[in-house]
Amino acid sequence: MKHLIEPLDFTTEEYEEIFRLVDNIIANPGDYSHVCDNKLLASLFFEPSTRTRLSFETAMLRLGGQVIGFSDAGVSSSTKGETLLDTIRVIENYADICAMRHPKEGAALMASKAVKTMPIINAGDGGHFHPTQTLADLITIRHYKKSFDNLTVGLCGDLKFGRTIHSLVRALNRYKNVKFIFISPEELKMPDPFKNFIDEENYTETRDLVSVIDDLDVLYMSRVQKERFVSSDEYERLKDYYILTEEKLKNAKEDMIILHPLPRVNEIAPEVDKDPRAVYFEQTKFGMYGRMALIMKLLEATK
Amino acid sequence: MKHLIEPLDFTTEEYEEIFRLVDNIIANPGDYSHVCDNKLLASLFFEPSTRTRLSFETAMLRLGGQVIGFSDAGVSSSTKGETLLDTIRVIENYADICAMRHPKEGAALMASKAVKTMPIINAGDGGHFHPTQTLADLITIRHYKKSFDNLTVGLCGDLKFGRTIHSLVRALNRYKNVKFIFISPEELKMPDPFKNFIDEENYTETRDLVSVIDDLDVLYMSRVQKERFVSSDEYERLKDYYILTEEKLKNAKEDMIILHPLPRVNEIAPEVDKDPRAVYFEQTKFGMYGRMALIMKLLEATK
Amino acid sequence: MKHLIEPLDFTTEEYEEIFRLVDNIIANPGDYSHVCDNKLLASLFFEPSTRTRLSFETAMLRLGGQVIGFSDAGVSSSTKGETLLDTIRVIENYADICAMRHPKEGAALMASKAVKTMPIINAGDGGHFHPTQTLADLITIRHYKKSFDNLTVGLCGDLKFGRTIHSLVRALNRYKNVKFIFISPEELKMPDPFKNFIDEENYTETRDLVSVIDDLDVLYMSRVQKERFVSSDEYERLKDYYILTEEKLKNAKEDMIILHPLPRVNEIAPEVDKDPRAVYFEQTKFGMYGRMALIMKLLEATK
Repeated sequence: MKHLIEPLDFTTEEYEEIFRLVDNIIANPGDYSHVCDNKLLASLFFEPSTRTRLSFETAMLRLGGQVIGFSDAGVSSSTKGETLLDTIRVIENYADICAMRHPKEGAALMASKAVKTMPIINAGDGGHFHPTQTLADLITIRHYKKSFDNLTVGLCGDLKFGRTIHSLVRALNRYKNVKFIFISPEELKMPDPFKNFIDEENYTETRDLVSVIDDLDVLYMSRVQKERFVSSDEYERLKDYYILTEEKLKNAKEDMIILHPLPRVNEIAPEVDKDPRAVYFEQTKFGMYGRMALIMKLLEATK
Repeated sequence: MKHLIEPLDFTTEEYEEIFRLVDNIIANPGDYSHVCDNKLLASLFFEPSTRTRLSFETAMLRLGGQVIGFSDAGVSSSTKGETLLDTIRVIENYADICAMRHPKEGAALMASKAVKTMPIINAGDGGHFHPTQTLADLITIRHYKKSFDNLTVGLCGDLKFGRTIHSLVRALNRYKNVKFIFISPEELKMPDPFKNFIDEENYTETRDLVSVIDDLDVLYMSRVQKERFVSSDEYERLKDYYILTEEKLKNAKEDMIILHPLPRVNEIAPEVDKDPRAVYFEQTKFGMYGRMALIMKLLEATK
Repeated sequence: MKHLIEPLDFTTEEYEEIFRLVDNIIANPGDYSHVCDNKLLASLFFEPSTRTRLSFETAMLRLGGQVIGFSDAGVSSSTKGETLLDTIRVIENYADICAMRHPKEGAALMASKAVKTMPIINAGDGGHFHPTQTLADLITIRHYKKSFDNLTVGLCGDLKFGRTIHSLVRALNRYKNVKFIFISPEELKMPDPFKNFIDEENYTETRDLVSVIDDLDVLYMSRVQKERFVSSDEYERLKDYYILTEEKLKNAKEDMIILHPLPRVNEIAPEVDKDPRAVYFEQTKFGMYGRMALIMKLLEATK
């Protein structure tokens, strides 16, 4: 039995298998509408995340499976003092597979060690990992760029707290000759531990998006998340620092793609939505297809 | 692609088509239990409304479709500052059709302009429109009265804030020779803009229910909604003004029908529930059938 | 039409019928995956109880049925002042069967009197009854002990407020020669009305678990529920009084079984989980199978 707790739990070969399955699902969705008949997904959101939750639930329903769960710790037994592990052991008696989000780092890993028959998918554990976001990002890039090799990828905004950024960089760094450009204010720079994974010649850092935008094949924008800041003054000062506009896109390549994990607040101006390079809404669709393929893989479901 | 944002978005011919479909569904529900197989309803309730939400979800499930969604804005991404339009654009990548309730007037209309492939059903936008309530009302009246022409319809209670009343009046006014009697305290009278749609000889106003009850074919009671009042003193003073009792029904026609959008608080005494003229619980069943027919129409699903 | 409001609503013959159905479901689950096709369960939780709610929803989904509902009174119409009976009468127009939890004692009974076509299952009404927990307990004991006759059953912890304990005792007392040992601190003793149902020679009371543990065939541990205490000092003083450890289990029979209604807080040490006598997680699985059989029985569904 396999779990997905962090993005690097899967080899590049395993990702490739998922990418091919996604291609097949997109080409022939009808072939997959019963592959998880009689299977049950537990969708356990100990903190709310509507987009991710609905993506998982859609994925399971579109495979013919069913869903139980909760969207909020407030309605879970944790309010009666039960431990996470007890909750998971009970849920294992109900469900075949489990997607869980939890505010505590390491929660999904702990859960995966308590179960015997139910694969766990980490749908976000605090500021730690969010591997199905990385999966959505990778599928989107591969869809438009065909290969990851030799890409130049700009990551812009909050590189300090943005867990999706950290995971994506580590996942992309396994491919050949991927160059990273880290674009952020001084206060939100990519932390050293994440840079240390990358060969020095493969990344550069800058504060200025416009000066590097013409080099990029992929521009990954990120939200400056209020909840990650200790001081709200600091948040107010930094949140508008990097707002992507049509003006700033003037020198970008025609086939550059713009990604964003969503929700966005104002870091991408609405005018950009109509730009053909803006693929952040398509990205959520690829995320849903990726979760379909992932559920199939972990349940060993085949058509 | 068609949406249902306000009751008059559908012509009387389109309503007639829905009424006939409802008749067929009631006669042969088994024929419709798979017409929406592999279809997904997004049930997005940015403010709670259990009755309406469960009616939509029942409708979709009874057609063989599936449901994703939320029942409360508290668990939606809007708490992270995302705009409604971004939420809708993401949901469009998951679902085939969307029923949404939102506290802001115009929210459903805005949403309908942002989507390309997903029909939007307005399940209530603030004090504005609630077209599937109107649909339930019309189906109920037609079921018992066979035709809308020549009916005398009394509307009683809160005619100032009651959006379901406003919509029903506008919808009924499209039929031949419908007479309206508006029954309310001075403070809660039908507002002029809604009266202006009606020919002057087709409506009268009164404060006294009992004096007109023998004229009515349909009596539509309404709840005095606390949440629509600025002052809670004013609410307390007016809420018991028109309470329907068996005593007050003494002179009503034998085949008059009593409707109410529910929930009621105390504006209809429980003793009235057993009166054969009381059809407000049946009305919720017709509402569910109406939503089945509506979903089929908007998805162009056929048996 | 039959409801399940309190554990003794079913005769021992009816329980036996459910036990046999559970055996068949466990042996051939695939035979039951469509017996409730096109049936809808309303899962109405006016107070949260994730475990019980998900157990019911899993049960219905694994029978091929579908589920509507809410997990929290906050999102129900009751906030608009609607009575429970009106809510139930509306839900009856949507669903085929209803599981409801409500903080008020007698709520499920009241609901069962208001409906005409929809069986009601009491999923807990305040400190009163929780018959499907009793069902889970009975199925678990029968699974491991084959028969209830001649068992010695220890009930330990909060015997004063523990409704599951009261119900289980009344249900077991209908079998032949069942002996009860009530193990609790003075303050949380089994109340007289419940002892009065039992022949005097069939129960004893003690404060000391260890001194009686070697007599037991079944040890039923219970949670000291904070929400049942008026004073939180009193709760703090008593909650750790009876904690089950491996040390205390030293003299227990090899085939004794340990049950617990869950959630536990700390009344069973985690080390006990690995003991083969600990069956409290299996108990939740039997609860789910019991709910499958119960739904089938009340809907008169057959394979």
